[in-house]
Amino acid sequence: MSGKVGPFKVVLPESEMQTSWYNIIPDLPVPLPPPLHPVTREPCTPEDLAPLFPMELIKQEVSQERYIEIPEEVQDVYRLYRPSPLHRAYRLEKELDTPAKIFYKDESVSPAGSHKPNTAIPQAYYNKKEGVTGIATETGAGQWGCALALACKFFGIDLHVFMVKVSFEQKPYRRTMIETWGAQVFASPSDMTNAGRAVLEQDPDSPGSLGMAISEAVEYAVTHENHKYALGSVLNHVCMHQTVVGLEAKAQMEKFGEYPDVVIGCVGGGSNFSGIAFPFMKDKLEGRDVRFIAVEATSCPTLTGGKYEYDYGDQAQTAPIVMMYTLGCNFVPSPIHAGGLRYHGDAPILSLLVHEGYMDAVAYPQVPVFEAAMMFSRTEGMIPAPESAHAIKCAIDEALKCRESGESKNILFNLSGHGLLDMYGYGEYLAGNLRD
Amino acid sequence: MSGKVGPFKVVLPESEMQTSWYNIIPDLPVPLPPPLHPVTREPCTPEDLAPLFPMELIKQEVSQERYIEIPEEVQDVYRLYRPSPLHRAYRLEKELDTPAKIFYKDESVSPAGSHKPNTAIPQAYYNKKEGVTGIATETGAGQWGCALALACKFFGIDLHVFMVKVSFEQKPYRRTMIETWGAQVFASPSDMTNAGRAVLEQDPDSPGSLGMAISEAVEYAVTHENHKYALGSVLNHVCMHQTVVGLEAKAQMEKFGEYPDVVIGCVGGGSNFSGIAFPFMKDKLEGRDVRFIAVEATSCPTLTGGKYEYDYGDQAQTAPIVMMYTLGCNFVPSPIHAGGLRYHGDAPILSLLVHEGYMDAVAYPQVPVFEAAMMFSRTEGMIPAPESAHAIKCAIDEALKCRESGESKNILFNLSGHGLLDMYGYGEYLAGNLRD
Repeated sequence: MSGKVGPFKVVLPESEMQTSWYNIIPDLPVPLPPPLHPVTREPCTPEDLAPLFPMELIKQEVSQERYIEIPEEVQDVYRLYRPSPLHRAYRLEKELDTPAKIFYKDESVSPAGSHKPNTAIPQAYYNKKEGVTGIATETGAGQWGCALALACKFFGIDLHVFMVKVSFEQKPYRRTMIETWGAQVFASPSDMTNAGRAVLEQDPDSPGSLGMAISEAVEYAVTHENHKYALGSVLNHVCMHQTVVGLEAKAQMEKFGEYPDVVIGCVGGGSNFSGIAFPFMKDKLEGRDVRFIAVEATSCPTLTGGKYEYDYGDQAQTAPIVMMYTLGCNFVPSPIHAGGLRYHGDAPILSLLVHEGYMDAVAYPQVPVFEAAMMFSRTEGMIPAPESAHAIKCAIDEALKCRESGESKNILFNLSGHGLLDMYGYGEYLAGNLRD
Repeated sequence: MSGKVGPFKVVLPESEMQTSWYNIIPDLPVPLPPPLHPVTREPCTPEDLAPLFPMELIKQEVSQERYIEIPEEVQDVYRLYRPSPLHRAYRLEKELDTPAKIFYKDESVSPAGSHKPNTAIPQAYYNKKEGVTGIATETGAGQWGCALALACKFFGIDLHVFMVKVSFEQKPYRRTMIETWGAQVFASPSDMTNAGRAVLEQDPDSPGSLGMAISEAVEYAVTHENHKYALGSVLNHVCMHQTVVGLEAKAQMEKFGEYPDVVIGCVGGGSNFSGIAFPFMKDKLEGRDVRFIAVEATSCPTLTGGKYEYDYGDQAQTAPIVMMYTLGCNFVPSPIHAGGLRYHGDAPILSLLVHEGYMDAVAYPQVPVFEAAMMFSRTEGMIPAPESAHAIKCAIDEALKCRESGESKNILFNLSGHGLLDMYGYGEYLAGNLRD
């Protein structure tokens, strides 16, 4: 590789930080079905949600404003790691011998190692502003727990994290990270809540699931004074906070002099994919030709194998019922290493866009995903999170299609996080112990 | 913290990448004593070093050129993560209530997580250019092993890594990272070499040391065809490659409109500190008032407790003898978590500058160092490597002195790497299990 190519990456200066998030709700092709109360099955009122979230986030959840200003205090914390770089993957292109151009947005640069702080920081900020002193949450792979621990430390809020047991055991370092930022961690199902105790009674060896951990966190929040709950994905306001990713990527693609033909992201609850996709989806809704591919794990195929219907967000059926692609709120996926992709449902906005035909979805088993992760590590250097490797696998497949067709498409994917805390999974892969 | 402060960091665009390294040798206040042959004790000739290193690195080792061009091919790989950011630590300043301004250069952003790729990349490049097919090396904390594995993968060279046993056991994820980038790893002392077997005979439970692992790697390199050896610190060319750190930092401090009063770095073999310090040392040698503080671990106090004399670079006494601060080549430090600070000697150039009074040195035990690491994680977000936390501890102490004196000094330190692969040590600290 000679010095003639380049730039390899575009890094925006702090002076070009985004000052607003993009809210896609007013631009959706059909209205978003409202969330329903889990008991009455009537549309949720702001009062229904008030025990869980601060009022500003409830407002954002249903806002019809296209752009919502990012508070100065949130921008100040974003500046720890934002704007994040956009890379051109020259070496991966060369390895694949493809005429496609591959770009990736690197959200691994946050202190927590993923895109999750993009919403953790504003969530902690709005809670603090409304006088909340403690938050309870769940975490799957541990990335959300880390992100919220970091954010709560910065805004002076206590945090209790219910961590899906299989991740708690596979990823002890994630737990230590969360504790380093001052939060408390419990393996879920735990004996801290009625929801957890009920599961443990039936199956003491339950590996846990996000749906289960959500039930525990919600119960903990509503039974403790001045506490709220926080969710790291799925909800409209979470997806909106993540659009800072796509807004930056758009500005960076412009500096490369390019625009993506395909936008790819992995999907667990849908937040990182929403983040990179929605600012470009705005263009598609205005008539521009862009393709979107949501990539999920074969072991938790919500978009490719689920039903588009109203379902509970959590296993104990205490969270609001939302219209989404779902495998059913009692679905417990196998313990794959991409713990962040093990949620039974999907963000309602993302689900709507897939259902209306604006986005495609594919699913991959974990062995070819780790193969893609290895190729990426050995060409682009960075070791990706197993979740993000799903997007890499899809980008590679799209680039290989271009090799067949001779097309020079621009492929953009979101590298939602690094895999440095997932080396156990890489070790298992290298030892030949991974199965699909 | 309001939005009025800032910028929080300065990130240079790729177009402002450094194109040369700074070689301090011609600017040293007294001539550097030459390395001696381990058997004859005569000054080493290039031929003596030829079995170990490619000729271009041997030339750089004794070069009198003040600036040496960074090859395009090396710059291309540097661009994966360079230029690295320079942060102003506003939140840490606020926590310390100090009038000092604290700046840190963030070398954790490389795929390997430390400053080590800055020299691994050119070393692999020059080896490749001269037809070398395999390299053997040692690694302490594992950061050098990761960096060289990454670099060798990019230039198509086989790599064998002898990893100090205590790190091999404490940091299994580092081993997996090295393997992810395609290299082979052996716990040292190993049964792969005469040097390793000799140690194991005397002490089968030896925790290993850098000096021991160096002996193994050197033996492996010289006994295998078309193989060379590579060292991640100490040598002149290694320190020179690292000056890309200080050269960038200087340009970034200028964009902040500032110049450091104090420059701080942790010291194992001395490469990261040389990297940030030498470009500013050039100014001091020309009369500017700058203070330099090298920070080491109390358990391996080479600069603060060693002798300035000729000593062997490795335990088996097969590497060249160099003039340096040393604890003796048989010194085996206790197994602290900052594995990268466990070398018995120091870079000859750094040693000379300390001996001549141009640099100060301090040593800290590991518990207060982890306390500093916790404060940094909870104010600046990023979790530092235990090695880098030594520099943080010193920066904090300097900032506290400013609080006493009321001086508003500019304190610059090198954050040589992140601690994400060191969470075991953080876990031990949080559990109250660390001892000094």
